[in-house]
Amino acid sequence: MSAPAPAGRQVRIVGTGLIGASLGIALSRAGFQVSLDDPSPTAAALARDLGAGVLAADSRSVPELVVVAAPPDVVADVVAAELTRWPDAVVADAASVKGSVLTALRDKGADLSRYVGSHPMAGREKSGAMAAQGDLFEGRSWVVAPGPTAAPDAVTLVCEIARAAGSVVLVMTPDEHDAAVAAVSHVPQIAASLVASRLRDLPSGAVALAGQGIRDVTRIAASDPGMWTQILAGNAPSVRGVLEALAGELNEVITALRHLEADPNDGSVGARAVLARTVADGNAGRALIPGKHGAAPTAYASVLVVVPDEPGAVGRLLRDVGEAGVNMEDLRLDHAVGQPFGLAELSVLPAAVQPLIEALRALGWPVHE
Amino acid sequence: MSAPAPAGRQVRIVGTGLIGASLGIALSRAGFQVSLDDPSPTAAALARDLGAGVLAADSRSVPELVVVAAPPDVVADVVAAELTRWPDAVVADAASVKGSVLTALRDKGADLSRYVGSHPMAGREKSGAMAAQGDLFEGRSWVVAPGPTAAPDAVTLVCEIARAAGSVVLVMTPDEHDAAVAAVSHVPQIAASLVASRLRDLPSGAVALAGQGIRDVTRIAASDPGMWTQILAGNAPSVRGVLEALAGELNEVITALRHLEADPNDGSVGARAVLARTVADGNAGRALIPGKHGAAPTAYASVLVVVPDEPGAVGRLLRDVGEAGVNMEDLRLDHAVGQPFGLAELSVLPAAVQPLIEALRALGWPVHE
Repeated sequence: MSAPAPAGRQVRIVGTGLIGASLGIALSRAGFQVSLDDPSPTAAALARDLGAGVLAADSRSVPELVVVAAPPDVVADVVAAELTRWPDAVVADAASVKGSVLTALRDKGADLSRYVGSHPMAGREKSGAMAAQGDLFEGRSWVVAPGPTAAPDAVTLVCEIARAAGSVVLVMTPDEHDAAVAAVSHVPQIAASLVASRLRDLPSGAVALAGQGIRDVTRIAASDPGMWTQILAGNAPSVRGVLEALAGELNEVITALRHLEADPNDGSVGARAVLARTVADGNAGRALIPGKHGAAPTAYASVLVVVPDEPGAVGRLLRDVGEAGVNMEDLRLDHAVGQPFGLAELSVLPAAVQPLIEALRALGWPVHE
Repeated sequence: MSAPAPAGRQVRIVGTGLIGASLGIALSRAGFQVSLDDPSPTAAALARDLGAGVLAADSRSVPELVVVAAPPDVVADVVAAELTRWPDAVVADAASVKGSVLTALRDKGADLSRYVGSHPMAGREKSGAMAAQGDLFEGRSWVVAPGPTAAPDAVTLVCEIARAAGSVVLVMTPDEHDAAVAAVSHVPQIAASLVASRLRDLPSGAVALAGQGIRDVTRIAASDPGMWTQILAGNAPSVRGVLEALAGELNEVITALRHLEADPNDGSVGARAVLARTVADGNAGRALIPGKHGAAPTAYASVLVVVPDEPGAVGRLLRDVGEAGVNMEDLRLDHAVGQPFGLAELSVLPAAVQPLIEALRALGWPVHE
């Protein structure tokens, strides 16, 4: 949390969906004067009622900063209009792709010294102002991705606003941002969708074999097609590049499997090596994902506990974990099919495994390392 | 749990790794007489010490059933040898692919009336007898996949043993099994590996943008390359078929992105339709995955709670959830980067959302729907 902003600093938010309304709430709490605009008067009024600010129609102030939180396919148009309307304001956006917005603004001849692209890495499955929450950005990364001609003061202002909302600021170029979100967000979305899609080919009983693995891989496959079409279209070059690299490796796997199919008993060292390398490269990539709190990746150890499937059982377990003085890094619940209990997988630092097991066993929990 | 087996029923387990040793423990507890064999005398002795049975070398009994729990690449050889050695016994295996084992046995001229392929859907990241646990199979699916010439009594016996270990039995053909595990297990593994692999292309700071989505998609990318090479090679035809279908759709996505890249502003309805259909098909596939306890898929609602990152905080929260009388279907912890707290996402039945929110708010928890 930052110190309160000096009284009277004006921020205008255009687009009062989940991101815009949440930002309004956060900045209002931080002491900024926020005005709200939206093509839908109902959406703007709802955001006002949630404490996101005052309606732009009721405000006569000139904004220091405009934040455009509009759907991806209209962001560039709205940013251009705001740059024209407020000739002294910095204008930022919150779209999840950056290069295409900058290119579109350049094509329109917009004043790029006052435009700063940004991308708060927040938001959940829900959308709309009803889902707004003032702490949506707390502890989340907020990428500030200025174009090459953005004024340094403008960049500093957007960083300040992101921090005021509680975010951790990461500054990178638009291209770096787009390549990163292609690999960490857009391509995983497509992969999850394609894997889930194949389940439609199975007879109905066969999906009963689904375990935790495919549940994890396909969780984000439940995302909204309309929103994702806009996101993917807006980041087409970067996503296409990553997907082509992925498709190249996929085709090597398919070729290797075809070799093994034709002759399962032969040496086929080359074919098996392709499979082993594919999984090993995945090991290496997975290990790059930062651990908790942005720390370097850490190898956590798992402790498995059998918990009865009844209200409060997991709570009792975790209270006991807490009383053992062990800090849990992650928790998964793995429900058993047709049985009145599940498995809880507690991830803890390796040094905590033995003390935790002893403490839980002493309290009667069935524990496995 | 089944009733105790009649005294004196003999089961021989060949291969005393995680699966074999765990099965020995489970069947011994259920009243069977279990003998243990393994190419490694140390592994067999360890399983014995864990309560999995007696060493085969110390047993003079003739088994009614032999369960082969050997690595995938030697399963067929070991099953064939056991069928020859015990001419009156039923021989089952526990390998994660079924068609290739059956084919290999047919090629060897083995007595297929006494062979019953099976696949307990258990096992975790760990391996070896040290990780064995008698309840490994409790509530897990155990596929029994007999070939067309397996004797009905033999199939019944293997089903009985699987239930005695605590599993829920699913009977299907070897081909149905292999197609199912290709789609629900083997292809998700490859997809996770390929997505994780691409992270290696990013500059180190960019991986900091990784959110919960890619963490979920790539969790299983940490799996063992050697084991997975055997599994994938053993199910090459089914995996190849699913991967080719996936690659076909992937190429359509790449083509659509290339169209959008060439002309981002044109109608390109066809290209956008490909992206939207890909995500929508993923929605449909994801919705097929069974819910908790094998029930029909259920739409759960999420409640988000901000929890401080300190020992016991999650436990306190879940105790409070339990005391509210709400049964949690799933729990995710989403750690914030650089902040001393995280978000807990509680999945509950939709009807439980409002009572839960009210109960938690009354206790002072910051809650969002």
